[in-house]
Amino acid sequence: MSDCLFCGIVDGRIDATVVAQDERTLAFMDIRPITPGHLLVIPRRHGDRLAALDPEDGAQLFRVGQRAAAALYASSLRCEGVNLFLADGEVAGQEVFHVHLHVIPRFAGDGFGLRFPPDYEVVGRDELERSAAAVREAWS
Amino acid sequence: MSDCLFCGIVDGRIDATVVAQDERTLAFMDIRPITPGHLLVIPRRHGDRLAALDPEDGAQLFRVGQRAAAALYASSLRCEGVNLFLADGEVAGQEVFHVHLHVIPRFAGDGFGLRFPPDYEVVGRDELERSAAAVREAWS
Repeated sequence: MSDCLFCGIVDGRIDATVVAQDERTLAFMDIRPITPGHLLVIPRRHGDRLAALDPEDGAQLFRVGQRAAAALYASSLRCEGVNLFLADGEVAGQEVFHVHLHVIPRFAGDGFGLRFPPDYEVVGRDELERSAAAVREAWS
Repeated sequence: MSDCLFCGIVDGRIDATVVAQDERTLAFMDIRPITPGHLLVIPRRHGDRLAALDPEDGAQLFRVGQRAAAALYASSLRCEGVNLFLADGEVAGQEVFHVHLHVIPRFAGDGFGLRFPPDYEVVGRDELERSAAAVREAWS
């Protein structure tokens, strides 16, 4: 994908601050860090969305994300917690259409967080069962 | 871990609305869904934090999360995007100390989103290189 920013990083056509790489993945610093140390893990092989991601590339994304979290905790950077985050689709916040896993160091008062819907609350078992039935029917 | 809520679900001592399971993982509905269909994928084996997670359990969490996303898109539930989210540590939003991956269906106007720090902006290469040096030094 010659017009893909992250493929350009994989190919070395576009600069990135890489921290680790292996046969399947590349880990590099997010140029717009939520907190210092915020990094992205991507598959070398292009896939725009989760639906196009080789599941073994996905498995390796998580392994590398877990190692990155351990490195952040062990590093001199401020890291009291970590979020792993992946956005699939524009409505979910995806901006670059090459799958990427965010690894975000967290610390008290860092200003990052989640914004919840106004009706965010515990629901009854009936409602959960209805949702689950819909998911089970579609699960392959 | 007899006092762990999610170990109780794995053991069948605590009710949950399970949608899928395999040798390593269990996927069930979050009782406080951000959107209908929001589910959690957990390892059967207890680990309170990422540092205690078997990396192969982590790899399988992601594989199952990817399959769950595909099921949500294919289901009758409203799903125009998906977020995968994991909180490691209280400061990162972790509430149950048994590792869990959130799979959250997204749609326009769902009210969910991220809250960013006030100084969230693109930073220079020097700053990225300093962060990367700290991470590389700690990477094992």
